[in-house]
Amino acid sequence: MASFGGIEAGGTNFVCAAGSGPDDVVVEEFPTLTPGETIARVGKFFRQHAVAAIGIGCFGPIDIARGRITTTPKLDWQQFGMVDAVREAAGVARVAFDTDVNAAALGEYTWGAARGVDTFVYLTVGTGIGGGAMVNGNLLHGLSHPEMGHIRIPHDLATDPFPGACYAHGDCLEGLASGFAIEKRWGLRGELLQEGHPAWALEATHLANGVVNFICTLSPRMVIMGGSVMRGTPIGLVSAKAEAALNGYLVMPDIVPPALGERAGVLGAIALVQA
Amino acid sequence: MASFGGIEAGGTNFVCAAGSGPDDVVVEEFPTLTPGETIARVGKFFRQHAVAAIGIGCFGPIDIARGRITTTPKLDWQQFGMVDAVREAAGVARVAFDTDVNAAALGEYTWGAARGVDTFVYLTVGTGIGGGAMVNGNLLHGLSHPEMGHIRIPHDLATDPFPGACYAHGDCLEGLASGFAIEKRWGLRGELLQEGHPAWALEATHLANGVVNFICTLSPRMVIMGGSVMRGTPIGLVSAKAEAALNGYLVMPDIVPPALGERAGVLGAIALVQA
Repeated sequence: MASFGGIEAGGTNFVCAAGSGPDDVVVEEFPTLTPGETIARVGKFFRQHAVAAIGIGCFGPIDIARGRITTTPKLDWQQFGMVDAVREAAGVARVAFDTDVNAAALGEYTWGAARGVDTFVYLTVGTGIGGGAMVNGNLLHGLSHPEMGHIRIPHDLATDPFPGACYAHGDCLEGLASGFAIEKRWGLRGELLQEGHPAWALEATHLANGVVNFICTLSPRMVIMGGSVMRGTPIGLVSAKAEAALNGYLVMPDIVPPALGERAGVLGAIALVQA
Repeated sequence: MASFGGIEAGGTNFVCAAGSGPDDVVVEEFPTLTPGETIARVGKFFRQHAVAAIGIGCFGPIDIARGRITTTPKLDWQQFGMVDAVREAAGVARVAFDTDVNAAALGEYTWGAARGVDTFVYLTVGTGIGGGAMVNGNLLHGLSHPEMGHIRIPHDLATDPFPGACYAHGDCLEGLASGFAIEKRWGLRGELLQEGHPAWALEATHLANGVVNFICTLSPRMVIMGGSVMRGTPIGLVSAKAEAALNGYLVMPDIVPPALGERAGVLGAIALVQA
């Protein structure tokens, strides 16, 4: 079987993989440094593991047509031409490019929880919040790509006086429920908050409001929720709160973790070029 | 050119049309009464205007696969098998069935503002609020169909103490911004509220929050906003408030009225069976 390359390009870490799928893959992860240092390491990995083509699932916002990152708050990476840089560093002609969350959605569609599911949402709740979607078997793009983390949701300041942590929108979904927001609100990183800490019920409330909106807007058959914050957030509680908020008005889709776990993104990046 | 039939089945009025497009169509509108009375009138119209097939854009929620209305608060119409009833009353073998807003989206895509636009949202703001969408050139369906009116949005009780008018969700988008909500909040139907009345700026604020969420979730190239409440709401103000809320994070799509005006739904119903 031909070997393909995948990159999950994150703001904190890069994950590179070479192989043909979940059971045949070599993976390497390293911290995201400057573009120069990071892409040099990407190039080294893919020169060691010869691949026919490389798919990139990238943190955003990105300009898919131009193959570049656009307005990220990570200054070093603003307007960085990711596709050209990877093509040159790895010595590979064919490079596919999409958001990290669309790549993860494709990974779950190809090998994971969403096999055979033509319309679903993939959410990641980590340092930020992002969403990708498959609609009628096609990854969702439009004018640009979804930025699901930045929807507005109800925010009851009486029960949650935290003003929100999004630099652009304050108390949007990401501003209220991202890992960054948890750390700012409680003064502790989520990993250090015990099970049973009130942080988790509040987190489930905010995420449920987000999920309700994605359900009402996209009518997905399934919502997959991954990312580091979901290690602490009970996914069943998110689902129960979303169902309660919908109040019987709609049939609830399944809300499940990614079957590929933390490899959904990098495996999906491989799937981006296997088509 | 063959003549096709279209029905825009609304909770207040039914609109029937026979023809091949905007420039060749006969239209008749009448109030929605009981299913028996209403469908008899539908049958009479289509027996007068022979058509090859009929498309129905229907108020919801509906079960598209089973051709029926489901849990509407209009008791007479709950679980009504619309497709079979129209097929029998009109004596037509082929009947297509979708939501009123997906039909209107298809109308605008075929003959209106969204020609050549593969990914866009169509919103109607009338007695209720509904949204349809075209994604990659296909009408959006999933587990069921979108119910965009029922997304949750921020609601500042200090500036808008109205508790919301949605029977299922209280202050969801529809509960805050539908024509029914306007009437409940101000004690007057929207038609009777003058230009410059504070109702319209508040309406634009709530609708802008909804539009922001649809933009972040679907990345549409265009948002079309129709329906009776948009006769009073300045669409430019909705767009300006949405752009301000997005704060430069995303490129704004065009926000425009339907080019087909109030005929988008019934013409789109015709387009449903012309494919």
